[in-house]
Amino acid sequence: MTLTIGSTSVPTLEEFLQLPETKPASEYIDGKIYQKLMPQGKHSRLQTCLSTAINQAGEPKKLALALTELRCTFSGKSIVPDIAVFEWENIPLDENGQIANKFEIPPDWIIEILSPEQSASKVIRKITFCIKNGTKLGYFIDADDKSITVFQPNQLPEVKEGLDILPVLSVLQDWQLTVEDVFNWLSFSGRKII
Amino acid sequence: MTLTIGSTSVPTLEEFLQLPETKPASEYIDGKIYQKLMPQGKHSRLQTCLSTAINQAGEPKKLALALTELRCTFSGKSIVPDIAVFEWENIPLDENGQIANKFEIPPDWIIEILSPEQSASKVIRKITFCIKNGTKLGYFIDADDKSITVFQPNQLPEVKEGLDILPVLSVLQDWQLTVEDVFNWLSFSGRKII
Repeated sequence: MTLTIGSTSVPTLEEFLQLPETKPASEYIDGKIYQKLMPQGKHSRLQTCLSTAINQAGEPKKLALALTELRCTFSGKSIVPDIAVFEWENIPLDENGQIANKFEIPPDWIIEILSPEQSASKVIRKITFCIKNGTKLGYFIDADDKSITVFQPNQLPEVKEGLDILPVLSVLQDWQLTVEDVFNWLSFSGRKII
Repeated sequence: MTLTIGSTSVPTLEEFLQLPETKPASEYIDGKIYQKLMPQGKHSRLQTCLSTAINQAGEPKKLALALTELRCTFSGKSIVPDIAVFEWENIPLDENGQIANKFEIPPDWIIEILSPEQSASKVIRKITFCIKNGTKLGYFIDADDKSITVFQPNQLPEVKEGLDILPVLSVLQDWQLTVEDVFNWLSFSGRKII
């Protein structure tokens, strides 16, 4: 969905950032404002389970932190990844040592879950924009295709499926995740416990 | 669409190649047979115009040749790109010096046009499979998004749009094409003549 401000004006990033937040969140990309889709069941489930799993692997040892629906503003755009993961030392803090409210850096790992009806090209553009600006890893999760396409800097993306082991941030090196592990979260009949 | 042969048997590539051709064509990927979608208006128009344009640029000087719906069998798969482009010297010939019937090499350039309802991940998998096996250039054309994602070896894909100039095979170095040129072919009201 594209929102317009006023009649035909192109908002600046600063103007966009002063607008009230919407629900679902809106993103500012190349002078246009796009509202994210309202997440549906599978999207919501994958977003919750994967962020929880990353935090279980990353938080106890202060290695990495996953945050859902976090606004990240950098390099002239303001995006809201489905899941943004930061290495522990990159988490921005305020003067009191608490997690900052404004994130003006790219996530170290961006995870996007394709919704039905969503444009794959727009999602790929968002992931490649991040990777060109410092993100180390991107997932494009396609539940219909039961595949996860992995983006890394200066590489052709790789479409992973089934028992393929997914690359994760190197700080999480002891943790292993397969594509099947991810899509098992969607299955409630005879569901594997992982 | 997935076809099954017999009951639960996994066909070999050789078994697949002995089956009669279907319309739309079927592809053999990782032990499974997928039938391509019946092309719709926009898909058909883009396929026709882009292959014609490439041949106008490439055929007179014997630089490159575009072929639509050509079966290419290599590296264990048998795929049918929407458009397969070969540099002139790579066109397989038979003993009479005519174009061969069987193409057992990857195209130098693969062009795929996303159909509505088609899985973007499946198309990306097909393009990256080609590029990992010798293809130099891949286009993923998304008419709904008015964008063309360009794949090249060992690179992050780039999503091009509007007046962005598209990379083409280096043998066609004098020829220039923008994303807008491609999508103008879809427009019949006030259509630009290019």
